[in-house]
Amino acid sequence: MNINNAERDALYKVIFSRRDVRKDFLPTPIPDDVLARILQAGHHAPSVGFMQPWDFVLVTEENTKNALKRGYDLASIESAQQFSDDKREEYQSFKLEGILEAPLGICVTCDRGRNGPVVIGRTIKPEMDLYSTVCAIQNMWLAARAENIGLGWVSIIHDDVLRDTLNIPSNIEIIAYLCLGYVSKFSDKPELEEFGWLPREDINRLIHKEKWSSKA
Amino acid sequence: MNINNAERDALYKVIFSRRDVRKDFLPTPIPDDVLARILQAGHHAPSVGFMQPWDFVLVTEENTKNALKRGYDLASIESAQQFSDDKREEYQSFKLEGILEAPLGICVTCDRGRNGPVVIGRTIKPEMDLYSTVCAIQNMWLAARAENIGLGWVSIIHDDVLRDTLNIPSNIEIIAYLCLGYVSKFSDKPELEEFGWLPREDINRLIHKEKWSSKA
Repeated sequence: MNINNAERDALYKVIFSRRDVRKDFLPTPIPDDVLARILQAGHHAPSVGFMQPWDFVLVTEENTKNALKRGYDLASIESAQQFSDDKREEYQSFKLEGILEAPLGICVTCDRGRNGPVVIGRTIKPEMDLYSTVCAIQNMWLAARAENIGLGWVSIIHDDVLRDTLNIPSNIEIIAYLCLGYVSKFSDKPELEEFGWLPREDINRLIHKEKWSSKA
Repeated sequence: MNINNAERDALYKVIFSRRDVRKDFLPTPIPDDVLARILQAGHHAPSVGFMQPWDFVLVTEENTKNALKRGYDLASIESAQQFSDDKREEYQSFKLEGILEAPLGICVTCDRGRNGPVVIGRTIKPEMDLYSTVCAIQNMWLAARAENIGLGWVSIIHDDVLRDTLNIPSNIEIIAYLCLGYVSKFSDKPELEEFGWLPREDINRLIHKEKWSSKA
């Protein structure tokens, strides 16, 4: 199946305009058919040995979100202590999650025991199943953007809070908690770039020919 | 920026027709401008705290590929021993890499020390930088497919073989070795599905409402 130039350019448009969304969420619910497409996009990610190790826990209730928000708040206080004095205030000024505002949360997990203990392609690099699940998340991220839905990955929360709140069994690995919703706008640039926290790296410094080379 | 329906459908076409390519590579070189777009797609992946921890080592020389192919061969023999007697022969019948045939290899790495020790969003979940790099790989995978280029992730090779062959420093994490090239065709389905190794999971069994539920 051939992809034409317009389709190729559409993919790049989605990739370059995708953002990690933590604010500007609207309460508009996500229609079932739209959500189904986003989940199918995740389910069609590459997976090592075709093990498809992912599950998706959909969160919509206020109580659940409140419990997770408390978990975020505690983890954020704990995180702030790790920053140097001159960086801490700026860190605390960022809004880094939209747990309560986003109409939908999705916890994405990895069942490392799925389809038996020996998996093609995981024999040498055991983390491949975790990485497969991350590929699913990136597919969902792009699918959400293509549906004009914002998605944010909340990583400042302990796995145990998600596990206890969502009843996730101990043998299931927690990879991500995602917040999804329509947005009033997508930012032109990543926020941490816009606010001058860090610049975009020059890609030419990240490319090496044939062997690793130390760069200027 | 709004994504219209045609653009959305183009994204889904790319996602659903993307394959892990191990055969059918053509020797046609990848033009520089096409490769530049694929790498830019990776570079515009989400990254925790905007740390952009990735590097890309481009492999085109015969000698380098031969050394990596020897590493794959040894790792594949080691892997075969892990399968039960009834599965081993089928495992050995699969072609799982295209290191020599693909005109381009890309080793994608993660510099966990980039931009200092404390990273926004990595304070609680330290693996977030590895996961960011995997998001970059999935962007590249889709970009390659949109350029009608096949990409395969070779995971049956020890990191040390890649490290020694490509001179990658010990403080840099190796995430993936990717093979890229134009192909004679893209398969309709993942090979392991086509060959009956495993079926596609029913997505409805992977979706949980509000809390984890055990499924039939």
